[in-house]
Amino acid sequence: MTDPFPPHLSSPLLSLDHIRAVLQRLEDTILFQLIERAQFAKNARMYEPGAFKELKEREQWDGSWVEWFLRETEAAHAKCRRYESPDEYPFTDPALLPKPILPPIEYPKVLYERSVVNDNKRIWEWYRDEVVPTITRRVEMGDDGQYGSAATRDVEVLSALSRRIHFGMFVSESKFRSAPASFIGPIQSRDRDALEALITKPAVEAALLVRLEGKAEVYGQDLNTGDESRRKIDAKEVVRLYREFVIPETKVVEVDYLLKRLDGLSEADIEELRQSRAS
Amino acid sequence: MTDPFPPHLSSPLLSLDHIRAVLQRLEDTILFQLIERAQFAKNARMYEPGAFKELKEREQWDGSWVEWFLRETEAAHAKCRRYESPDEYPFTDPALLPKPILPPIEYPKVLYERSVVNDNKRIWEWYRDEVVPTITRRVEMGDDGQYGSAATRDVEVLSALSRRIHFGMFVSESKFRSAPASFIGPIQSRDRDALEALITKPAVEAALLVRLEGKAEVYGQDLNTGDESRRKIDAKEVVRLYREFVIPETKVVEVDYLLKRLDGLSEADIEELRQSRAS
Repeated sequence: MTDPFPPHLSSPLLSLDHIRAVLQRLEDTILFQLIERAQFAKNARMYEPGAFKELKEREQWDGSWVEWFLRETEAAHAKCRRYESPDEYPFTDPALLPKPILPPIEYPKVLYERSVVNDNKRIWEWYRDEVVPTITRRVEMGDDGQYGSAATRDVEVLSALSRRIHFGMFVSESKFRSAPASFIGPIQSRDRDALEALITKPAVEAALLVRLEGKAEVYGQDLNTGDESRRKIDAKEVVRLYREFVIPETKVVEVDYLLKRLDGLSEADIEELRQSRAS
Repeated sequence: MTDPFPPHLSSPLLSLDHIRAVLQRLEDTILFQLIERAQFAKNARMYEPGAFKELKEREQWDGSWVEWFLRETEAAHAKCRRYESPDEYPFTDPALLPKPILPPIEYPKVLYERSVVNDNKRIWEWYRDEVVPTITRRVEMGDDGQYGSAATRDVEVLSALSRRIHFGMFVSESKFRSAPASFIGPIQSRDRDALEALITKPAVEAALLVRLEGKAEVYGQDLNTGDESRRKIDAKEVVRLYREFVIPETKVVEVDYLLKRLDGLSEADIEELRQSRAS
């Protein structure tokens, strides 16, 4: 029989307090790296597949500059076993990444493995099409030629956004374990709306957006001019990016995760879950 | 005859206003990345040569984890011709880095090439021995195992510090061009103190430290707790790091640069410089 709950049933990694602390600290990282990226121009060419013929000729790379930069960076990080961590997913096709050179770490198996989802393709497209044009709007030049510096920041922002959105799986697992019986029906009837309702806390979301705006106002201050009202990033735009993508996309990941949460379990396993008390 | 002043005599890159703007923006980057690094433990093992036997066995690497991580990152950046830029220097021995895959950019030759210095070895040693222990002091664990995340931040801090300190060469070139005659005597008599006096503005330094402390107080705020007095980094410590190393080390680079500023020039070239008016 498949073990529906691995031994570390009440893993501290799944406590909502822990998850909340990680997500809040990630807001700071996302903001810092967005502000760092926002000092450079939009540089549309960096995001166009095939715009640098040298990448095609010398690296057999058909994608864009930033995707190539992602692969180079993720190759180094893959060697350091970054993507063995259950909250880290590469943007690059794992088949193109090297194997870790360090021995594997035994991570506690807190997620249900058959449920894990990779949302990075959607995150990348949204970042390229929405985030970059939004945050670089105040740079007068459309192209400053600083492709290396800008791409370094792109990689940092993308990786923080990806970690943030995939952390939804921990939220889902935590909530599932706290009341499995209430999830089983909606999972079996593929009812996305009901699952979303089970994991959504409108008051928490509202508080997040208020906190985020406050942080963007503080960390976005430009203290290099005498003008205290100057900002390096528009706080309202950051809030919009969270409201329109980060939060709903996290829910997509959360629901996708839940929909696969019973895969591979027998009827008896599921019945046992249904009878079990909250962990 | 060697051309003592290339055609772009009054390059906007050498205007003190431009240099000041770059250095001030770099303060923000350095602070942001220090704050990001400070969330992880000190992880002394990351800085010990040979601490990971896999790096020796599988990568023939005798150095430390972070130096290996630097090489991996700098290899990617070298392919993007980062180190052809006159204000970017790798920490890794250039012989170990790949050639750029993009065609060279024609940078305006604002620095006097025979004068260029690489101070990264000293920056690395100071960072490892002083900065890391200082900024990680408030993390309770000595080792949190987050070597990849911590090293990513190390690379960012080091690269920003390096750019900041090497930017001193632009300061020197700018000041040299504004009054070459006053520099020639001290350069020829190898008088470091006199050269340092020519480039030092105590009032500017004092203002920098005040501004830096203010930035560290603002950007270092921990807005995830209710406690407004909490900081993710100690502003006074950041000021100390600048006062004890960043500022004096920039002067070392500035003076080293000036000491080589007449190399390869003929007596006639030097005489012409001595007679020339400020540019």
